[in-house]
Amino acid sequence: MPDARFFQRAGPFSLAEIAERIGAHLGDAAKGNLIITDVATLEDAEITHLSPFVDPRYYSSYITTAAGAVLTTRNLSEKFPRLGVGLIFSETARLHYASVAWLFYPEAVRGSVVRMRVAVCGNAIVGADCQIEPSAVLGTGVVLGSRCQIGCNTVIGQGVVLGDSCIVGDGASVSHALIGNGVEIFAGARIGTAGFGFAPGPRGPIRIPQLGRVVIGDNVEIGANTTIDRGGLGDTVIGAGTVIDNLVQIGHNARIGLSCVIAAQVGIAGSANLGDGVMIGGQAAIADHIVIGSGARIAACSGVMRDVPPLITVGGAPAVPIRQFHRQTTALGRIAKSHRSDNAPK
Amino acid sequence: MPDARFFQRAGPFSLAEIAERIGAHLGDAAKGNLIITDVATLEDAEITHLSPFVDPRYYSSYITTAAGAVLTTRNLSEKFPRLGVGLIFSETARLHYASVAWLFYPEAVRGSVVRMRVAVCGNAIVGADCQIEPSAVLGTGVVLGSRCQIGCNTVIGQGVVLGDSCIVGDGASVSHALIGNGVEIFAGARIGTAGFGFAPGPRGPIRIPQLGRVVIGDNVEIGANTTIDRGGLGDTVIGAGTVIDNLVQIGHNARIGLSCVIAAQVGIAGSANLGDGVMIGGQAAIADHIVIGSGARIAACSGVMRDVPPLITVGGAPAVPIRQFHRQTTALGRIAKSHRSDNAPK
Amino acid sequence: MPDARFFQRAGPFSLAEIAERIGAHLGDAAKGNLIITDVATLEDAEITHLSPFVDPRYYSSYITTAAGAVLTTRNLSEKFPRLGVGLIFSETARLHYASVAWLFYPEAVRGSVVRMRVAVCGNAIVGADCQIEPSAVLGTGVVLGSRCQIGCNTVIGQGVVLGDSCIVGDGASVSHALIGNGVEIFAGARIGTAGFGFAPGPRGPIRIPQLGRVVIGDNVEIGANTTIDRGGLGDTVIGAGTVIDNLVQIGHNARIGLSCVIAAQVGIAGSANLGDGVMIGGQAAIADHIVIGSGARIAACSGVMRDVPPLITVGGAPAVPIRQFHRQTTALGRIAKSHRSDNAPK
Repeated sequence: MPDARFFQRAGPFSLAEIAERIGAHLGDAAKGNLIITDVATLEDAEITHLSPFVDPRYYSSYITTAAGAVLTTRNLSEKFPRLGVGLIFSETARLHYASVAWLFYPEAVRGSVVRMRVAVCGNAIVGADCQIEPSAVLGTGVVLGSRCQIGCNTVIGQGVVLGDSCIVGDGASVSHALIGNGVEIFAGARIGTAGFGFAPGPRGPIRIPQLGRVVIGDNVEIGANTTIDRGGLGDTVIGAGTVIDNLVQIGHNARIGLSCVIAAQVGIAGSANLGDGVMIGGQAAIADHIVIGSGARIAACSGVMRDVPPLITVGGAPAVPIRQFHRQTTALGRIAKSHRSDNAPK
Repeated sequence: MPDARFFQRAGPFSLAEIAERIGAHLGDAAKGNLIITDVATLEDAEITHLSPFVDPRYYSSYITTAAGAVLTTRNLSEKFPRLGVGLIFSETARLHYASVAWLFYPEAVRGSVVRMRVAVCGNAIVGADCQIEPSAVLGTGVVLGSRCQIGCNTVIGQGVVLGDSCIVGDGASVSHALIGNGVEIFAGARIGTAGFGFAPGPRGPIRIPQLGRVVIGDNVEIGANTTIDRGGLGDTVIGAGTVIDNLVQIGHNARIGLSCVIAAQVGIAGSANLGDGVMIGGQAAIADHIVIGSGARIAACSGVMRDVPPLITVGGAPAVPIRQFHRQTTALGRIAKSHRSDNAPK
Repeated sequence: MPDARFFQRAGPFSLAEIAERIGAHLGDAAKGNLIITDVATLEDAEITHLSPFVDPRYYSSYITTAAGAVLTTRNLSEKFPRLGVGLIFSETARLHYASVAWLFYPEAVRGSVVRMRVAVCGNAIVGADCQIEPSAVLGTGVVLGSRCQIGCNTVIGQGVVLGDSCIVGDGASVSHALIGNGVEIFAGARIGTAGFGFAPGPRGPIRIPQLGRVVIGDNVEIGANTTIDRGGLGDTVIGAGTVIDNLVQIGHNARIGLSCVIAAQVGIAGSANLGDGVMIGGQAAIADHIVIGSGARIAACSGVMRDVPPLITVGGAPAVPIRQFHRQTTALGRIAKSHRSDNAPK
């Protein structure tokens, strides 16, 4: 279960109360009075804990778990019968597990570092109940909404606006940016640095001034050490609800739609244009000026050099529709084999 | 147009004055008195703004722009006729756009954060008109030239030498380095950390002391969160005029020539040796000890495992000459198709 | 030779003394009294220096070196005869070179920045002889062992435990972590940030609280700007002796064995499970939940989508056994050629 040095637990709750609070179904009413004190993995759980079981690969842990209660789907529980455990059913068990975890750990978003309130501000405007940690720097004209947390050694540059309930981790820097409500920026992220804009000059590349901004919608999350360049002229835009993992690069004037999911180490080049709900696997690369339709999916490690229509899944480098990529992979394996026998003595 | 919270504008200028100052041609002398107050994209521009039109993909924005003046090539303006707009012509319109933008925004390189002059120095030598921002740390024996800016929370390690007019962004760290004039290092970059040098020992890898430096020529630019390791014995060298994007890794004892352009997330392994004017697309990887000739180009996402002769363009992983890579891609697509039909019922 | 501004040298030593101290063989006893003052590359060395010669590619530098002494293998010295140089022989010359370099530079691990002892601590427990540099922050309940160094502007979050002799570079942040002895974490690394855990919600991704830790064994090394996420529920684990290069991403609940070597820009997705002694080349990607057996090797730029058995080497994306990958590459080259001739006029 979560380490009390890092996480502050609420509860306990009865199993019935948990089911009701998260809006899921209690398997057996007789188990409703079971007292649950914590969440834990199937492997680590004790008798007063609740564990999630949402991935059939972990069925052997489920069979042997000491957990008193398990949150799972009706399907999985029928496939792997298990007596003596209090069950909560949900067809979206992963989503409901999130709710349970929030119930026990309502402040788990960010383990606070120090509760000192130290600020180095110019004429910045700081909303109610903000927490500015040691050595954080707020530049001239910065505006913070209510309940923002700014991590240690983090720099919010001149003129930047953050909405309410934003969290910026330690050692990050944010400049030239307008940011909505509920945005979380992780440690070491660099938002608003100058884009990679050069004109070929007679004696090497000449820097083009980067005069745009980064505009970030509500509830966006940006991973650790990720970099998002400001626009060259016009803005780089990240749509509301989009989540971005660690070490991602987003180039100048890129436009990302609503509720996209962008995994670690992805690179999105300048002026790329993504619709809503686009999902991109780790280490994939999107070339500059590429248009990706809403609901498209890009497999991990792909290199996307052409536009992708809405709802299409692509893979490979250069990326092609995913079934074609699988056929290429299969064909290549087959040819490699026959190529070998061609060379064999006859 | 650029947001006044982040950028400080000069001007206004007449169109004739702009053309003369940047050394480009005024299309129609009658428009010379047009007063231009700012630069803006074709989409955002108003009647007193000048916009660049250098990429034919944006022709529809050009046709409908409200901009009073446009900087473009004679070719594009003939291909897409447009009345009532003041034109400035240049065959290197992108380069001249950079000049216009510098004219309106002479200090646009780095939106300053705070103008306080706070320094934590040992016996460092700080040149005239340097700006050291809050919580920056200068180690023993550091030497800064004139007009350097050191960002908030940035650490310049013991003995490091920077020339004149260098800018180091926020939250960066620089150690074991000798740096020329006019170098810009972006937020979060790590210059001079120990290289990844290990000898295989009986019980796992044994660290080899990393005793070299990083030597950086004039006017180099290094992107946000990029890492450049110092040499193991001897130096890692970045030639003058080279520009490096975000999240790039450069290994120990790599040598990069003059005026190279290295896009985001590229990895250059230890002891790789690049000539002058080499261009590398995003996420490409160069193996250790590889030699890349001057003027070579490496396509995005390539994996270079063999030396590349001067002026050659390569792509793919393992990288091959780019035409061969395109043929491979085409052949693979064709084979995947025939492979499918082989399996079809006859 | 190493720059005295950055590195503090011990010695001099006689050649016989060096051979004895590192446990290698002196080639010619008559050279035992040779006084060696420093280490240097074959190219830079002077008459009182010792150089390593372990890579035959550098034989021409060996032939012409001014070094008074060279550390090499008996094999190489026989293949490239060279008179007048004092030789030390070792069959593991690279490992013995590390010993020589440590002999001359016993404190070379980290060029110290400032020797000031400034600390911003809550009720942290700090062991004997620790060095906390300016603007470092230690959160509530932090425990540091003896002889730890915490770099400038680095943040050690609430409850984090470090063993003895740990070094954390500048501008790093560590949270939700339990760390062994002798661990080195480089500048800008982010340890313990929340993993990329989301449940698909009706209106976009819903954050799952990340309630685990990062557990790091003895003598682990973690590169600059690398990110290691804490577990979602349960821990992310890095085994003792493992070394990780710059800009690597390790996802939540990944488990890395003992003495692994992970090169720069590698991405290891959530819940991946690596055995002991696994070696991973630069920019390779490991998909989530993948199991990689002990002693396996993953070529640079690979994309591993399936489990890899122990001691197997794989390459390509999707990764296959390395000989198969080479055959694929060869076959593809051949097919591209014949594809071209198919299209030629007949």
